[in-house]
Amino acid sequence: MARSINDIVDLSVKELDDLIDVASDMMKDPQKYAKCCEGKVLATVFFEPSTRTRLSFESAMYHLGGSVLSVPNESSSSSAKGESVSDTARVISGYADIFVMRNPKEGSSYVAGKASLIPFINAGDGGHNHPTQTLADLMTIKMEKGRFNDLTVGICGDLRYGRTVHSLINALSRYSGVKFILISPQELGIPDYVRREILEVYDIPYEETEDLVGSMPKLDLLYMTRIQRERFEFPENYDRLKDSYILDMEKLGNAKDDMIILHPLPRVNEISIKVDEDPRACYFKQALYGRYMRQALILKLLNEKEPEAKARPKMIRCDIPCKNQRCISQTEQELEHVYKLVNEEHQIYRCLYCESKLMMKPADIADIEYIG
Amino acid sequence: MARSINDIVDLSVKELDDLIDVASDMMKDPQKYAKCCEGKVLATVFFEPSTRTRLSFESAMYHLGGSVLSVPNESSSSSAKGESVSDTARVISGYADIFVMRNPKEGSSYVAGKASLIPFINAGDGGHNHPTQTLADLMTIKMEKGRFNDLTVGICGDLRYGRTVHSLINALSRYSGVKFILISPQELGIPDYVRREILEVYDIPYEETEDLVGSMPKLDLLYMTRIQRERFEFPENYDRLKDSYILDMEKLGNAKDDMIILHPLPRVNEISIKVDEDPRACYFKQALYGRYMRQALILKLLNEKEPEAKARPKMIRCDIPCKNQRCISQTEQELEHVYKLVNEEHQIYRCLYCESKLMMKPADIADIEYIG
Amino acid sequence: MARSINDIVDLSVKELDDLIDVASDMMKDPQKYAKCCEGKVLATVFFEPSTRTRLSFESAMYHLGGSVLSVPNESSSSSAKGESVSDTARVISGYADIFVMRNPKEGSSYVAGKASLIPFINAGDGGHNHPTQTLADLMTIKMEKGRFNDLTVGICGDLRYGRTVHSLINALSRYSGVKFILISPQELGIPDYVRREILEVYDIPYEETEDLVGSMPKLDLLYMTRIQRERFEFPENYDRLKDSYILDMEKLGNAKDDMIILHPLPRVNEISIKVDEDPRACYFKQALYGRYMRQALILKLLNEKEPEAKARPKMIRCDIPCKNQRCISQTEQELEHVYKLVNEEHQIYRCLYCESKLMMKPADIADIEYIG
Repeated sequence: MARSINDIVDLSVKELDDLIDVASDMMKDPQKYAKCCEGKVLATVFFEPSTRTRLSFESAMYHLGGSVLSVPNESSSSSAKGESVSDTARVISGYADIFVMRNPKEGSSYVAGKASLIPFINAGDGGHNHPTQTLADLMTIKMEKGRFNDLTVGICGDLRYGRTVHSLINALSRYSGVKFILISPQELGIPDYVRREILEVYDIPYEETEDLVGSMPKLDLLYMTRIQRERFEFPENYDRLKDSYILDMEKLGNAKDDMIILHPLPRVNEISIKVDEDPRACYFKQALYGRYMRQALILKLLNEKEPEAKARPKMIRCDIPCKNQRCISQTEQELEHVYKLVNEEHQIYRCLYCESKLMMKPADIADIEYIG
Repeated sequence: MARSINDIVDLSVKELDDLIDVASDMMKDPQKYAKCCEGKVLATVFFEPSTRTRLSFESAMYHLGGSVLSVPNESSSSSAKGESVSDTARVISGYADIFVMRNPKEGSSYVAGKASLIPFINAGDGGHNHPTQTLADLMTIKMEKGRFNDLTVGICGDLRYGRTVHSLINALSRYSGVKFILISPQELGIPDYVRREILEVYDIPYEETEDLVGSMPKLDLLYMTRIQRERFEFPENYDRLKDSYILDMEKLGNAKDDMIILHPLPRVNEISIKVDEDPRACYFKQALYGRYMRQALILKLLNEKEPEAKARPKMIRCDIPCKNQRCISQTEQELEHVYKLVNEEHQIYRCLYCESKLMMKPADIADIEYIG
Repeated sequence: MARSINDIVDLSVKELDDLIDVASDMMKDPQKYAKCCEGKVLATVFFEPSTRTRLSFESAMYHLGGSVLSVPNESSSSSAKGESVSDTARVISGYADIFVMRNPKEGSSYVAGKASLIPFINAGDGGHNHPTQTLADLMTIKMEKGRFNDLTVGICGDLRYGRTVHSLINALSRYSGVKFILISPQELGIPDYVRREILEVYDIPYEETEDLVGSMPKLDLLYMTRIQRERFEFPENYDRLKDSYILDMEKLGNAKDDMIILHPLPRVNEISIKVDEDPRACYFKQALYGRYMRQALILKLLNEKEPEAKARPKMIRCDIPCKNQRCISQTEQELEHVYKLVNEEHQIYRCLYCESKLMMKPADIADIEYIG
């Protein structure tokens, strides 16, 4: 079975460090890598369009000398005829050497990675994971700040639905001396599970605030995200708040001189273009770093002989469907319902695919099978 | 004029054998072919999306070291402005070295192949032909059974509208000792013309049945296709029948140990995923073989000096439009109405493009011109 | 700052001559150029589909040995999330070595070229400019007539909305001895600004007529374009006129033997396919020449060290929005309103982006800033 990268934590801290080293070597000496994937084929299959992510992967492959099979928007094609994600992965395995997929179904990347006979990279499975965005974020931090430890990290905007935000918190929680300042309207604060299962489990200091300007002087890093009107129950709250989360030169007034500003892009208007010329603005560099990290990841996966066996969590198999309507298990042909144990003490189980919480206790489920 | 492959019978039995030999050599020694089309450009122009077929061609070209111009879905572009298929072929001839087209108009591939100055391959012209699917089927049979002769071939599902089915019957009718068992609901039995113009002309033994399980023990090969509810005049017939055409481990119970199962994919649910792990399941291999056959075909056409002149059938030119509403002659600018003689004894003429039958007798047509 | 080609006049007459020389050398000796852009990446980002133009650029890049990042139709993707053209250009600069964009917003190419860190080519910005079509036209004229001077050029069809027509007139106005015969229904005559700012400024002889057949004997070159019913205020005028602008063998009767026929394609029915076989028909060659000119242009821009500074026109910056509803300044984030002086005597200013005329006099504008 080939390796699949579904979540940022599928890569160890050591692996992340190595990837950043290789990526920065690629920036310094591109010629050295210009033909190292010659004859290899990358398939990018996007079940919803995301031009920037797709082009970043494809550019990465071209800079390694490889070729690209591209599916910019699969929605209108064979998936519409109802083909399963597993079947797609099996067929692509015969056409390419490495497989990148984006799919709006949460957990679809787990299913695709499992069925794929070639290395697999998740380029976004709905609101669930998007690990290569986090690779871009991490390289930016390392290259621009020189370290992951001892940073005060401000994250501003929509923290509730911002997939990249949860992933970044998860990744940074593995380093010491990191402190988060979570800046958002109350409606859009981070979800409970991030608070309980990441911040509290790893005992990371954090504060939550609505005040961007007041937080500014403390920050080593400001991660901006977009706030969308549709997210608000009461649109008048959006109209009242929106301007206080638009970064402009005035709000930057009392920031540190060596603070860095990140943004996953695309931006709409949450950062004034006046800020672009400020040396602290790192978001365009971040897009470039993202390409290099994808380059390093593709190279790593194509060169890996056999993935090391990972310790599997305890799991249960049963007839209870996942409650998440966007979960791949709602649509994938004959997919078993499996849940993994994520917290032994409180007996918390989560869907193996999309990681939504199982609301029943195993003891209350008939016809249950324990695995591992 | 460059060669064009519109129909599986455009390739001789000798050519098919050679293609399978080259394709299987490509599987064994991919390095040998990795740069043999370097500098060459394949254009895939799809007027309706078919991601699997497109990627198979493009992967084939990359594995030969060539480049690809890709048009995943032309519908929204210049064809919408009304450009003719001929003009598209002429323009593509200036951009690429070999041209692959899919187009929902029946007979469009004949027109494109005729106008093209570079070799042309039909990747599906509506319900008419799809010769490279048949190449995939044939290689699978040869690799997995070792022969084309002396096979009992079961074909199951929608035999009325299944283009790949007609094409496979046509191709296998050229070998000796082949017997067909045609398994379908009565509504979806093979069309009369396949019965009369292929099976009876070549005197091929066949039986028609609704019973999949009962036929199972006799089969050397089972070709599954999907049955669609929309095809039934009375949907209740579909509901009554559908389960009997879903292949699962139980129905496989009394099949031969060395029977092979083919399917053109995508499957929806007509084969249980439990069957995937059975060694008789060959449908994913079939997709891979399809890529190698396309590779062999591209290489062959790019290397052919000058196509041998083929004996042309007798034809008539007249003012009677083809009765097939999906025929390319309904829309293509200034296209002549031409019919070819396919059966001298009964004076049967078919449209040169889509092969629909001409309902009038030549003697009854005014202003007719006989060609050849 | 990298060079950007927005308008045909961004290239000097000397540069055009050089491009044609290189392009014709590429036709003669393709092998010589087959790897000259190896390792380089072209990005084609089309915000509206135009398959022929896109494939021409991509084919050009492949024939130079480079790779292609392709976005066939961006409309459904991140631009829909509202990303600015500038941001797109900045991000693409990190993924590719040269950037080709088509965008329906007029002036968008100026904005993209300005933000791009890599060489930029406009592949059409709405009804404004499309310089590489004009490159195709010019090479066709040079290859088929051997000169640009002393030609009587007939342009027939929709001269009002035909972007390629205005661009061709502009380009040819730089040569001596050129005379235009502008053949169109009155409703679709050339716009006033072409008459006043090109033909009259450069003192080019021209006549306007509705009569194609009568003009035929005088012409060295006939440039055909399509007339669309939607363009007519009174559709009955279209119905009355349309046949007189369809070129067929009969109308060609009294044309010179060495006249050449051009058409930007796609054609619908404005040229009968019977004309295709006439040696004067050059429109398919024109598509091929277009590919070679794009090849020459890509090579030139990738090899240029630093663009020469060009004399900038005098400009004003103010708060008056451009009146053109299709101008990029209507939508691009925080884009300044800037107008350039195009006629000192009459104090005519035009929008820096889309070149629409500023209707106010600078003296009447408050808060105006003069630049340069």
